[in-house]
Amino acid sequence: MAVYPEQIERLCDMFRRLDGIGRKTAMRLTLSVLDLPLEDVEAFAGALMAAKTEVGFCKCCQNISSAELCPICAATGRDRSIICVVEDFRAAMALEKMQEYNGLYHVLHGVISPMKGIGPDKLKIRELIKRLDGSVSEVILATNPTPEGETTAMYLSRLIAPLGVRVSRIANGMPVGGDLEYADEITLRRAIEGRYSMEGANPTK
Amino acid sequence: MAVYPEQIERLCDMFRRLDGIGRKTAMRLTLSVLDLPLEDVEAFAGALMAAKTEVGFCKCCQNISSAELCPICAATGRDRSIICVVEDFRAAMALEKMQEYNGLYHVLHGVISPMKGIGPDKLKIRELIKRLDGSVSEVILATNPTPEGETTAMYLSRLIAPLGVRVSRIANGMPVGGDLEYADEITLRRAIEGRYSMEGANPTK
Repeated sequence: MAVYPEQIERLCDMFRRLDGIGRKTAMRLTLSVLDLPLEDVEAFAGALMAAKTEVGFCKCCQNISSAELCPICAATGRDRSIICVVEDFRAAMALEKMQEYNGLYHVLHGVISPMKGIGPDKLKIRELIKRLDGSVSEVILATNPTPEGETTAMYLSRLIAPLGVRVSRIANGMPVGGDLEYADEITLRRAIEGRYSMEGANPTK
Repeated sequence: MAVYPEQIERLCDMFRRLDGIGRKTAMRLTLSVLDLPLEDVEAFAGALMAAKTEVGFCKCCQNISSAELCPICAATGRDRSIICVVEDFRAAMALEKMQEYNGLYHVLHGVISPMKGIGPDKLKIRELIKRLDGSVSEVILATNPTPEGETTAMYLSRLIAPLGVRVSRIANGMPVGGDLEYADEITLRRAIEGRYSMEGANPTK
């Protein structure tokens, strides 16, 4: 049976290494590369190398950055007394999109997971503790509400609380726009447990 | 609001040029490039360039090929008297996967589409006619059963039939495993019109 030229198969294999790409999608992407003009493919190859070689991590918050300090850590208008701890830079970007949080971040680059052999020493925890030099009054633990994320939050809270820094955890409950019918039991239990008083509520539209 | 480094945005823009990739998927792919080892990213960039620069079209059937003649046209065991005409190389590969068709192909590189300004002269029709030098006894028109595909098939049949070559069109009907309840009316009508006698049928499992 005839197959695609070896160069096509090779590019297809590379696309398959990317997150969430299977054989069929990889081939679709590969074939659509052939439809691009040569200059664009050259630019694509250049962009791949640039993204890999020129982008590193912020020496303060460990977020991805092309400079020594990321734009968030380098910004002057931000509240430097609050640090929001997240698992990865995707989470930091999601919070940043909200355009409401004005503190700093700290990216752990993972969560504690004995199953995958990831202990606290493999995460950027040392770098986080180093930042708690008295200028920080609160650390918000925003790891995902998964078993690993909860374990990591628990571990960090025990580590940080003795340093006299307020430690908080993001709330659990119903996602806005969600439907109670489809919510899982644990989420519902947390939503009830975390209920807040509506007396004196002053809802804005 | 802080955004991703410019190198990340640039790579993301390149991924978006590929077929079926939106902003979110492009960013997921971009960020997963960062997780690859440097050697793999180098190999990826190399594979991109190789696929674009080293892969051309078979001078006979116009399918993608890294050699002058594609493996199908160059093969010795194939029936050179039948040519199956397809819109693009994806269709040729789909038929080839079937592992039953043993003739040759001809890739049109599109279909006639007045809406998109694609006339017969933009397709590889001249190259197809040139192949009908007496050695070909049948041309199977396997353009997609879409309005453009049907128009193209009609156009080609009028062009080829006078040359004394048998012209056939792939069958329309119910896809195997499909459900009559969800089939569209035109497909059902074609399935009824194209019904075949089961007398003397010798079904194999």
